[in-house]
Amino acid sequence: MDTVKVIEIKKSVFEDNDRDADRLRAELKGKGVYLLNLMSSPGSGKTTTLIKTINLLKEKLRIAVMEADIDSDVDAVKIKEATGIDTIQLHTGGMCHLDAEMTRQGLDNIGLEGLDLVILENVGNLVCPAEFDTGASRNAMILSVPEGDDKPLKYPLMFSVCDVVVINKMDAAALFDFDLAKCRANIAMRNPKAEVIPISAKTGEGVELFAEWLLNEVNNWKNK
Amino acid sequence: MDTVKVIEIKKSVFEDNDRDADRLRAELKGKGVYLLNLMSSPGSGKTTTLIKTINLLKEKLRIAVMEADIDSDVDAVKIKEATGIDTIQLHTGGMCHLDAEMTRQGLDNIGLEGLDLVILENVGNLVCPAEFDTGASRNAMILSVPEGDDKPLKYPLMFSVCDVVVINKMDAAALFDFDLAKCRANIAMRNPKAEVIPISAKTGEGVELFAEWLLNEVNNWKNK
Repeated sequence: MDTVKVIEIKKSVFEDNDRDADRLRAELKGKGVYLLNLMSSPGSGKTTTLIKTINLLKEKLRIAVMEADIDSDVDAVKIKEATGIDTIQLHTGGMCHLDAEMTRQGLDNIGLEGLDLVILENVGNLVCPAEFDTGASRNAMILSVPEGDDKPLKYPLMFSVCDVVVINKMDAAALFDFDLAKCRANIAMRNPKAEVIPISAKTGEGVELFAEWLLNEVNNWKNK
Repeated sequence: MDTVKVIEIKKSVFEDNDRDADRLRAELKGKGVYLLNLMSSPGSGKTTTLIKTINLLKEKLRIAVMEADIDSDVDAVKIKEATGIDTIQLHTGGMCHLDAEMTRQGLDNIGLEGLDLVILENVGNLVCPAEFDTGASRNAMILSVPEGDDKPLKYPLMFSVCDVVVINKMDAAALFDFDLAKCRANIAMRNPKAEVIPISAKTGEGVELFAEWLLNEVNNWKNK
């Protein structure tokens, strides 16, 4: 089994997270590194989605992953084994979110030299991570079909801050009476600009659309 | 459509939540009211499980529900319509959990006279609600099959503080390669005393076991 580096994240000392996040975003831009902050509920399929997406992109982009969890390294090991790319595990020590300074601690441990894209898999939680700007270039979230098409009504901030909403486990839509049109309308109510990409990480359907969105994003970030 | 009372919860001023929670638990005990704190991820099926459980118990116990959400009243209205019992909606104003004082604000608005059981549906979040004692007689959680059998590894505190873990959406176990034995072992690692009750709120299978557990709990609480 592969082993991954495990970083115990320390609580931030900065009081003004928004300013710190803007500073980090500018630094990353200067280095040509795109940072994607990926958020979701526990069990939405973030890890499987990432593995399939990275395998579609790893010949085109130099990618690293930071896997944030309260405990355990299972996801980081899984990603490293399935993709071969650099992956580190961030342990939040019980903290329910990451902020910019905590993200920076992870980035310092990866080393950004030569990278195009860093993906931060945030703590599985639809509430707190939405409140803290990590300094990412863009925010993405995965909503999974079994969670229900009404989630944008109940977790408004999360849907408001995300540039793209990936809807995963579409292969189970019939079993869970999931109404994609209703879900799109609920997302649009919170965030009319959000891209919505339905996929099934299990069957692979639609994953290439998310990979394409991400590739365009990274290329635009470098060239603007 | 039924309407429900909506309470905007205020942030607590108490610094010592544990002491406040013990005080609330003792007050409830004195009044013969059992408070169940029900936690889970977003979309685990808390509301459907509650509706079926309440319909099995409402002739035997006088029950009220407090439905906590960051926003929206959809679940509270659904429970009131499907069970006919008293239901109020607590709006947390963006807060990711409830503590004892916030729970008390809800209880004051229900009125405890004549009640046997109050069910608090906590904010959908596997992280923060586990950190705050609400003053409940017992903590329960619902883990749903699509979230995966590895969740006890990733959210250790939540599984440690729960007296019972209901595993919902068992009808979808095959589709999601969910291993119940592995899940039981993972739960036992965090909390060897936790009861584990597999159910499907959709088909109704197993819900009577959870209802029975709860009925015994309430009766023991009154008689001890």
